[in-house]
Amino acid sequence: MTDETSRILFAPSSKEATGAEGTTILEAAREAGVYIDAPCSGKGLCGGCRVRVMEGEAEAPSEQESGLLRPGDGELGYRLACMARIRGDMTVFVPQESVLGQGEKPFTGRSGVIDPVVRGYRIDLAEGDGDQARVERVARLMAQQYDIRDLITDVTVLKDLGRTGGDLEGRVTVLVRTGKEIIGVLPGWDARYLGLALDIGTTTIAAYVGDLRDGQLIATGSATNPQVLFGSDIMSRISYSSRHPDGARRMQTALIASIDALVRRMAESRGFDAHEIVDATVVGNTVMHHIFLGIPPDRLGLWPFMPTLRQSLDVLARDLGIGLGRASYLHILPLEAGFVGADNVGVLLSDEPHRRAEISLIMDLGTNGEIVLGNRERLLCCSCATGPALEGAHISSGMRAIEGAIEKVRIDAATFEVDYAVVGKEGWARDHGAGLEPAGLCGSGIIDAVAHLYTTGLIGEDGAFSQDRRTARLRKGEAGMMEFVVAWRAETRTGRDIVLTQKDIREVQLAKAALYAGCRVLMDRLKVASISRMVIAGAFGMHIDKASALTLGLFPPCDPAAIAMVGNAAGHGAYLALMDKEKRKEADRVAPFVTHVELAREEAFQREFMNGLSIPFKRS
Amino acid sequence: MTDETSRILFAPSSKEATGAEGTTILEAAREAGVYIDAPCSGKGLCGGCRVRVMEGEAEAPSEQESGLLRPGDGELGYRLACMARIRGDMTVFVPQESVLGQGEKPFTGRSGVIDPVVRGYRIDLAEGDGDQARVERVARLMAQQYDIRDLITDVTVLKDLGRTGGDLEGRVTVLVRTGKEIIGVLPGWDARYLGLALDIGTTTIAAYVGDLRDGQLIATGSATNPQVLFGSDIMSRISYSSRHPDGARRMQTALIASIDALVRRMAESRGFDAHEIVDATVVGNTVMHHIFLGIPPDRLGLWPFMPTLRQSLDVLARDLGIGLGRASYLHILPLEAGFVGADNVGVLLSDEPHRRAEISLIMDLGTNGEIVLGNRERLLCCSCATGPALEGAHISSGMRAIEGAIEKVRIDAATFEVDYAVVGKEGWARDHGAGLEPAGLCGSGIIDAVAHLYTTGLIGEDGAFSQDRRTARLRKGEAGMMEFVVAWRAETRTGRDIVLTQKDIREVQLAKAALYAGCRVLMDRLKVASISRMVIAGAFGMHIDKASALTLGLFPPCDPAAIAMVGNAAGHGAYLALMDKEKRKEADRVAPFVTHVELAREEAFQREFMNGLSIPFKRS
Repeated sequence: MTDETSRILFAPSSKEATGAEGTTILEAAREAGVYIDAPCSGKGLCGGCRVRVMEGEAEAPSEQESGLLRPGDGELGYRLACMARIRGDMTVFVPQESVLGQGEKPFTGRSGVIDPVVRGYRIDLAEGDGDQARVERVARLMAQQYDIRDLITDVTVLKDLGRTGGDLEGRVTVLVRTGKEIIGVLPGWDARYLGLALDIGTTTIAAYVGDLRDGQLIATGSATNPQVLFGSDIMSRISYSSRHPDGARRMQTALIASIDALVRRMAESRGFDAHEIVDATVVGNTVMHHIFLGIPPDRLGLWPFMPTLRQSLDVLARDLGIGLGRASYLHILPLEAGFVGADNVGVLLSDEPHRRAEISLIMDLGTNGEIVLGNRERLLCCSCATGPALEGAHISSGMRAIEGAIEKVRIDAATFEVDYAVVGKEGWARDHGAGLEPAGLCGSGIIDAVAHLYTTGLIGEDGAFSQDRRTARLRKGEAGMMEFVVAWRAETRTGRDIVLTQKDIREVQLAKAALYAGCRVLMDRLKVASISRMVIAGAFGMHIDKASALTLGLFPPCDPAAIAMVGNAAGHGAYLALMDKEKRKEADRVAPFVTHVELAREEAFQREFMNGLSIPFKRS
Repeated sequence: MTDETSRILFAPSSKEATGAEGTTILEAAREAGVYIDAPCSGKGLCGGCRVRVMEGEAEAPSEQESGLLRPGDGELGYRLACMARIRGDMTVFVPQESVLGQGEKPFTGRSGVIDPVVRGYRIDLAEGDGDQARVERVARLMAQQYDIRDLITDVTVLKDLGRTGGDLEGRVTVLVRTGKEIIGVLPGWDARYLGLALDIGTTTIAAYVGDLRDGQLIATGSATNPQVLFGSDIMSRISYSSRHPDGARRMQTALIASIDALVRRMAESRGFDAHEIVDATVVGNTVMHHIFLGIPPDRLGLWPFMPTLRQSLDVLARDLGIGLGRASYLHILPLEAGFVGADNVGVLLSDEPHRRAEISLIMDLGTNGEIVLGNRERLLCCSCATGPALEGAHISSGMRAIEGAIEKVRIDAATFEVDYAVVGKEGWARDHGAGLEPAGLCGSGIIDAVAHLYTTGLIGEDGAFSQDRRTARLRKGEAGMMEFVVAWRAETRTGRDIVLTQKDIREVQLAKAALYAGCRVLMDRLKVASISRMVIAGAFGMHIDKASALTLGLFPPCDPAAIAMVGNAAGHGAYLALMDKEKRKEADRVAPFVTHVELAREEAFQREFMNGLSIPFKRS
């Protein structure tokens, strides 16, 4: 590795990066805002970040990299971006297939009112006399037929209407936003127009595309937030922004490039065009919200930890450089307070605890965990840094809950043999033989594994590996750290053992202790002794085994039948706000209704956190 | 000349053009949307389009070009863009000095109400507790101090407010547009904020920058509309758009690049920053209006000759790619009808015939002449294609009314000797000796010259040069065409004779006949026999000698004392609408109040046009 700097040209985007020799193609790409999806976050597990070196050469592939490449890849110049190290100038082609990880399950659709902000109206431009400016004719027909008046027209629509002899001379569908602005004129009376709901998580971006005419979900997708390269949690993103004058802009650029790539890929695979998207809603925690808008999140790192903006906001997609319909707006949902952002507002829109008499405890599990407790009289919220462990990041064999991820684990108490289930495959490994070919562990698999390690006595209450259980799966790993082998290399897609290390278990303990302490503080504050309704949200929440989670103490004690796993409720809330404009108003009302509890200011938090580290946690 | 194509890289813009060998640098630049101002429209008269060839070489300079270059220019690679022909790849630097022709006189300032759409409000962000999002604190202070509520905030402003430790922590000026939207937060309580009024003519662009706090005009400038390369009149621009799929976009790009360059040059010379401009108004004829907005003007070339949009419109400057303040809007004034556009609405705002009892005849002279006749009860308007002759284009020695242009001419009836005055110099040439160094003839000089040619008998009533007047100034020119020498080469800046050819005189006859016929049709329609109040507008109108114009029959017969020369009334109207929002409402009311007369449908027009060709015109 030298201090030399090389120039890397990425195709087909034509973006250019500079990278020090010895750094990886993935690092250079992310610096330059070129999005390459790396499902395992660039840990060399999954082989998902295949790129093709067209000109120049990278350093020779390691054995690990060679093992993950497909037969014949070498001759064609294919490399794995996370492992191929730069040695001189290169041109690198990013195949579309690497752009997007898929396999995320959509939220369970709940029927809702379909009353979007953008609606289509059918008029016939061939009607009437020609003695009028075209825009005036559109206005007159809209007034005559629909009693919609005083419409303004986006400048991009004027260009379309100026053309002659095209497909806008007769029957057209006029897209009107909020009853006030014409944002599109589409040929024909059956024109389709779509909406996009975005949930921007610290680690994962989820996107949902639906038909605004009937509310039907037509595509769903997810990608790793490319900002992980700038820091794995929100504090490190704030720090990056504070230390670099254009840090926020760089993170924004990377984020928007990845959203664009995600939408494009969804469009290709589901047969729509990104320009058909004419409205969008966005949720995300406060830091993601700020970075998405290009607002430096620096203030959130300084006392009194205030966001710059809390209210909802409408922004033209083109002002952020997102390639949707030319006059499409994005509706950014409001924030609650501190780090509890629009994503939690999405959760509230989805679950509606503010309409219930019963007290609900809602935990949205992600890199940042948000907890809400209360009912229609009062709602408390707090945010706790769980770290990315529950999303499979910062775990040695961790990955997102996409195809190939181990999502369920059970360990035989007598033999310590392991069985597992994998996302995208039916049934358990034992029934398949070697056919499941897992690539790594996602959050629910990690929770299962740790819970079973505990119930089988392989780890103790303090999370430390037992010294007296004998099995070949329990061993000293490379750095002398104890680890447990979940799947042997012969079974895996990567040709490497899938393990859970002592450090991984420690990450899970820290995450669960933070969640536990947050719940306790809110329960004490609201004087609630026990939970009769619990809602677990989070994209990976759908996969979690309740018994394992309760064993681990991830949730406060609760009747398993009273626990609902609702999946990505934040994304679902964004989708509801996309399809029903009343939901946007509800969001604006509920966001300031929630009382934010700043855990850092609570004396009790530290004590509860210490209590929560043990498995199962001790009651204070 | 070959069919080879070369690549031309323009600095500092980094734009690249391709040009066939043998074409000029100016042509390549305009194709690529690189703006090089050519005050004489690229006729090789003025030496104003100096550029520097940094790499590669053009064809060797002609004698004409060498004569116009400054001493030492050759060694440094300077060339004139309109004459240097491409021979292989080149890098061409466009010096800032060539970007803008100046010298235009501002309209005569009339006092007006100062009530702009954008206003600054002083607040102190250090006040109050810190327990609020910054945007909320701004909103609260605006409500407390100014009772302005429900403000929305442009996304670019949010970025500024997110920064920490900068100059937005204490006293700031909040810029609010229409009392509804925050479009800027400036440091300090004495922050300056500016407005821009644009008049986009077929041949000339005029720009005025004023201080929105007190209405003071601080800069004025003009440039040739680069679309002249796509056709000299509006019909040829429509035709270009119809024949090329992205013709409108290309003309828009060229136009906006030139506006950007003009504003930047004004900013440099007057000590402001283009980003200080936070509001703008725009006028222009219907075709310029459409092209400026990127709307193909094709419909204006097809029966029933309807614009796509007539109403006024607010557009974000950034949506058109104009480099003003990041959240600055442009207010595009409404159109009247047909080709009578927002420029004529500007004239009405300036002169206010719709508030007068007396009948006014208003003629706005430009490449397209617009005529308005009437009073507060009724106003008629029409448009007639006068051609660019009155702006100095399509005239062999013609140029814009900038420094170096002959603006007054007199011819001695006995000796046929010529005297002249030059823009930017005091007094007549006879008193200066050879010191005036004219470069060409602008519109008022052309009118003077033709009128004096007639009164001295050098041309007859039909405009043809006399066969019996003997003077060395009257001669056969290069193509065998008769021409009259206004200034000998020894006197001129270009080292070439400044002449008026038979064809030039024909152009003037066509222009004046069109204006005359238009006036007659409107007067007949309104049953007005004579004119007691006449207003002559147009940037070059200020320079016109009334006696010459009446001699020529450019205006209908009128007492010279009743003729007011008001300069660029369209630009003045735009400036009034910039400074007083009531003027925008007035524009929206008056535009549909004017009745448009389509001259092409009037039988009388053709007859009156034929009558009008003679000097002085015969009464029908």
